[in-house]
Amino acid sequence: MHSDRIEIVLVNTSHPGNIGGVARAMKNMGLQRLCLVAPKQFPAPEADWRAASAVDLLQRARVVDTLDEAVAESQFVVGTSARDRRIPWPVLDPRRCAQHVGEHTQAGEQVSILFGREDRGLTNDELKRCNLHLHIPSAPEYGSLNLAMAVQIVCYELRMLVVGDSLPAAPDAHWDTPFATAENMERFYAHLEETLEQIGFLNPAAPRQLMSRLRRLYSRVRLDEMELNILRGILTSTQQNADGGAARSALSDDAKTEES
Amino acid sequence: MHSDRIEIVLVNTSHPGNIGGVARAMKNMGLQRLCLVAPKQFPAPEADWRAASAVDLLQRARVVDTLDEAVAESQFVVGTSARDRRIPWPVLDPRRCAQHVGEHTQAGEQVSILFGREDRGLTNDELKRCNLHLHIPSAPEYGSLNLAMAVQIVCYELRMLVVGDSLPAAPDAHWDTPFATAENMERFYAHLEETLEQIGFLNPAAPRQLMSRLRRLYSRVRLDEMELNILRGILTSTQQNADGGAARSALSDDAKTEES
Repeated sequence: MHSDRIEIVLVNTSHPGNIGGVARAMKNMGLQRLCLVAPKQFPAPEADWRAASAVDLLQRARVVDTLDEAVAESQFVVGTSARDRRIPWPVLDPRRCAQHVGEHTQAGEQVSILFGREDRGLTNDELKRCNLHLHIPSAPEYGSLNLAMAVQIVCYELRMLVVGDSLPAAPDAHWDTPFATAENMERFYAHLEETLEQIGFLNPAAPRQLMSRLRRLYSRVRLDEMELNILRGILTSTQQNADGGAARSALSDDAKTEES
Repeated sequence: MHSDRIEIVLVNTSHPGNIGGVARAMKNMGLQRLCLVAPKQFPAPEADWRAASAVDLLQRARVVDTLDEAVAESQFVVGTSARDRRIPWPVLDPRRCAQHVGEHTQAGEQVSILFGREDRGLTNDELKRCNLHLHIPSAPEYGSLNLAMAVQIVCYELRMLVVGDSLPAAPDAHWDTPFATAENMERFYAHLEETLEQIGFLNPAAPRQLMSRLRRLYSRVRLDEMELNILRGILTSTQQNADGGAARSALSDDAKTEES
């Protein structure tokens, strides 16, 4: 994936605020190259304002008069399209489209991704200039996305190709403390059971499902070593306090009293 | 995936335009339930204006004073977070987060997805209320997404769970005309070769790689039956015209002349 080989092309955009929103969406996702085909109003203060810290993309944007000029150097052209266009054309969702775009940039090609007018998108003639059509699977009740939002989604999918699996697949893969080993968990369960008996909460003659339920609870949460040490500490304190009134009377900490 | 079990919760939003943008982003992706925790300015004309045809979501939005009220009924709480927060917490990208959210809604649970303030997101205390943190993998050069854009990406991933594979995986799976069979392609290649010999473009004594290259070209493009018929028609016309000046003189069509 070579993001520098991708140009986002906005065709006949009406609202300069949308151009600014597009610039920000692009830069947030690591894209840099913007081309504006006959924008209604550009440069414009609202474009700069909406771009926030992506004003540099607006300053470097190519502004051209025709789509021909915009895609002249491009080797793979993608056009965003509402569903149910009359012209049949290869059409993909943003995720699969991003995969294709990524492959074309890997092959050294220049890629243009076209976004049409706010009110009516790309014309059929413009869509016929494209190698691939991209459709964002919006809800049928309200399918019309804001232009900058559409760009945001497409650029996000391109970004996801770049970052790949840099974020963990499992929610706790980047945990800061090692997770408890099975052996230490067994020691904890033994300590817990012993303590519960000692405080009279668990009757060894009629244990019911208590320990099973507690095991299910703690295995589900996956304790880390530090959490395990905390719980073991609580158990030890509990046992010490259960040993007799002398130890108990020494307590001043509410939390410990609750645990005992 | 039950979209009606998901509520988007905006905490202390400053700009009403962003609230409107969020409503539109949600409705575009099939989500309906919006909760506003102590918004700075709401209702507001700019919210309505930016919501466009999603004003109904604003009208039905729950407006509450505290995060406690917002998540009181919720069984799974997700908080959006910038990377590099000090508190270690399970963190996922929007795609994997959506999968978790989908599973929780399948299990009948109510899910809240929290988005923080425009300038500083959720506080650490708010993040600690969450079962899972969500991080949008933005570019390091400029990681600060507009609020509505962040909501758009998250709702898009939820939408992708709903639509699943409703769009074709291959770009031409929904083609309107059947693709040519291998047998018909072979007839076409034979016809093409015969015609190229007839017009003197292909020398059977020294064919070089010509037919291989033409085969590679047409197999790459995957002709449909209608396209194949058009090409066969052109070859037939070419042959008729190559037969002699009599047929050629009868031509009036420029296109045919160019092909001959």
